Amino acid sequence: MSNVVFHRALTGQRWDGVEVLAYKEAGTTFQSVTRQVLFEGDPALCVQLRYFEVGPGGHTTLERHQHVHLVWISRGRGRVYVGGEFFELAKGDVLSIPTLTWHQFRAPLNSPLGFHCLVAADRDKPSLPSDQDWRELTQSREAAAFLRR
Amino acid sequence: MSNVVFHRALTGQRWDGVEVLAYKEAGTTFQSVTRQVLFEGDPALCVQLRYFEVGPGGHTTLERHQHVHLVWISRGRGRVYVGGEFFELAKGDVLSIPTLTWHQFRAPLNSPLGFHCLVAADRDKPSLPSDQDWRELTQSREAAAFLRR
Repeated sequence: MSNVVFHRALTGQRWDGVEVLAYKEAGTTFQSVTRQVLFEGDPALCVQLRYFEVGPGGHTTLERHQHVHLVWISRGRGRVYVGGEFFELAKGDVLSIPTLTWHQFRAPLNSPLGFHCLVAADRDKPSLPSDQDWRELTQSREAAAFLRR
Repeated sequence: MSNVVFHRALTGQRWDGVEVLAYKEAGTTFQSVTRQVLFEGDPALCVQLRYFEVGPGGHTTLERHQHVHLVWISRGRGRVYVGGEFFELAKGDVLSIPTLTWHQFRAPLNSPLGFHCLVAADRDKPSLPSDQDWRELTQSREAAAFLRR
């Protein structure tokens, strides 16, 4: 039988026993993002729960993958691009990122955006946009102004 | 390709496009609990995300099952019994309910307890305590004072 996982919430979107990690090991496809892993998965619930925080003016990687994200906004506000659509985000909002759909989260210039993100523990690696993808993604003026790679 | 699920947070722990449901269809094993389903599951992420709110003085069903709960507290505070342990709960706390482990959440007498609860979409039905289970569960004074069935 597995043990209870219990992470008490501390101040400032930190949790007892949870380390603040780099968003990704390396790369220049993102800016000002941290990651905390709140649940590593269990044989009877094969998911990971992570908390990401995007600093003021920062953004996550523009990417897509087979696996689905289930996201809820936990701090501040921001904006997300999902497969050609934009959503304004505020605390408490719940959204999914469908399979194989380009997406990128951005925080406002003056405040952070924090969100919980749930994924299958067994999942594929994200793909980055090719030059051809990038040209197609940034054809609209709104997308060209928002997206970064 | 599946579509984006987007539920904007409204005031009072409600979400746009999400209905407030009964916790369970019937029964007397719980008190003052509502349920909202925020994510129904996707072939690439086979989980359901629910928001439960336990009214002042209320409690969830004392039960156990093979499937695991991943829970985070979203409103107020409360207390949970998990397999012989008690945890005081406050907003932001993250915990799991392990497989086959008796558990029950209770709200304080004067305020609600709200929590998000994630489960596998394909899961077993909960079991209720038999008379023998109940005698064993309530042997400690603390458990006898806390648990309801």
